[in-house]
Amino acid sequence: MSRAVNPPQETGTCWVNGVAGAVVDVFDRGLQYGDGLFEVMAIKDGRIVLEDYHLQNLAEGCERLFIPQVPVKLLRSELQSAAESQARGVLKLILTRGSGDRGYRPSPHARATRILSRHAWPTYPPGWEERGIHVRICDTHWGHNRRLAGLKHLNRLEQVLAQCEWGEQDNIQEGLMLDDEGSVIGGTMTNVFAWLSHGVLATPSLRLAGVAGVLRRYILERAEQAGMQTRIASLSLAELMQAREIFVCNSIIGVWPVVAIGHWKYAVGSVTRGVQIWVNERS
Amino acid sequence: MSRAVNPPQETGTCWVNGVAGAVVDVFDRGLQYGDGLFEVMAIKDGRIVLEDYHLQNLAEGCERLFIPQVPVKLLRSELQSAAESQARGVLKLILTRGSGDRGYRPSPHARATRILSRHAWPTYPPGWEERGIHVRICDTHWGHNRRLAGLKHLNRLEQVLAQCEWGEQDNIQEGLMLDDEGSVIGGTMTNVFAWLSHGVLATPSLRLAGVAGVLRRYILERAEQAGMQTRIASLSLAELMQAREIFVCNSIIGVWPVVAIGHWKYAVGSVTRGVQIWVNERS
Repeated sequence: MSRAVNPPQETGTCWVNGVAGAVVDVFDRGLQYGDGLFEVMAIKDGRIVLEDYHLQNLAEGCERLFIPQVPVKLLRSELQSAAESQARGVLKLILTRGSGDRGYRPSPHARATRILSRHAWPTYPPGWEERGIHVRICDTHWGHNRRLAGLKHLNRLEQVLAQCEWGEQDNIQEGLMLDDEGSVIGGTMTNVFAWLSHGVLATPSLRLAGVAGVLRRYILERAEQAGMQTRIASLSLAELMQAREIFVCNSIIGVWPVVAIGHWKYAVGSVTRGVQIWVNERS
Repeated sequence: MSRAVNPPQETGTCWVNGVAGAVVDVFDRGLQYGDGLFEVMAIKDGRIVLEDYHLQNLAEGCERLFIPQVPVKLLRSELQSAAESQARGVLKLILTRGSGDRGYRPSPHARATRILSRHAWPTYPPGWEERGIHVRICDTHWGHNRRLAGLKHLNRLEQVLAQCEWGEQDNIQEGLMLDDEGSVIGGTMTNVFAWLSHGVLATPSLRLAGVAGVLRRYILERAEQAGMQTRIASLSLAELMQAREIFVCNSIIGVWPVVAIGHWKYAVGSVTRGVQIWVNERS
């Protein structure tokens, strides 16, 4: 079986501005322009894993996009209400710039809309975490924009088109996206790390493109604490080809070793196994 | 007065999938990922101006984004119902990939959502069309992506950020956006044309970035019919600086002559006046 099973949507698990409901105003700028941000969070034993990191990402995103900040206390309280009494689950929080008139210019009176939804924990074939995944190099590139790079904003058509490049019948579990210069930016839904032959844990710089997920930050911090040499810089396909180990990560899947990129083959090595242990220890 | 007056939203002028209403499912991919397209159309005497061009843009966009086509007959009928009995007005039609599960990959069963809203005709100071506008060169760049270039899709954060660069108090009516190579792509909400000193009507190529509005196409067609030499290619700031006339256009504003880009000054010339006459003749 080569596909994730997404359980059907539970009903009554969506809240808009704190009120149960699953509809938004059509004039919300999140819909009109993709004018907003999101985070996808893991629930474990009634708590949100790496909650502070997710909240920091949202606050930084609001600052960079000039979206009015939502009080952290309010967000934390709504997240915790949605997570408590859940052993396992996924929370997705969208913050938009709120409703507005026609026209790109934000109103000075804009107030953010909060859209929180809870989803069942997805079941992936266990082999993906254990024995690794097959990856495609996508034809769809990740465009450069310094103002947007790193943010998990709602303009995600590039990732949608990249995921359209392979089908259910292909034995492909993730796609790697490059920029126009041929540098690796990340997976369509993951960040990527490479353990290079000279003993450096490398991940692409996201200064010009890409999404800086919280698990990327957590792994970099743990690696530095462990005294490992890390590198955040442009990562070429040539370096990837010669890497000793490669893995991808996000908050929900954790860490999947990459065992094939097209015809290039990789072993699942001890560095990847060590990172998986760190990631399972996160709280 | 330096700002447009947008009259307040009329109530009861929004339809979702043909039914009066102004809310959408929070799991609509238009909101989740900006996964959709839009067109903004002028109503004149109960009819939609350049309706076929708008419908062709949507059909081309659906094809390029693999969004299931909506029958043109249905769209035309809904547009005409919304336009009839209106002397003047604006229709905005959004087509999204519809609701879906969490995850970028579209469902093979996706069905487009149609969101149609009618807005009062905006009142701009008449001086803008007559005596011209002042334009800023934006710091926010337009990122390259061949797969998305030219489409009026819902990923519009770059235009939102560009419009945040100037304030109500500045005497600026539009911003010009460049790509990372310094080529002119377009206005934040308009297409741009330059009448170059050797008698060529130039507009930027939108092969790598930008939105190809219907009025741009109409003007190019009229210019070619009139035997004017046109050029669709990369347009540099140096060329813009030396241009004899510059104007910007879209379906709602028509044609605004540009009389200043920062410290560079331009006259409103006979080519721009001629294009304004063509544009007022469109139906």
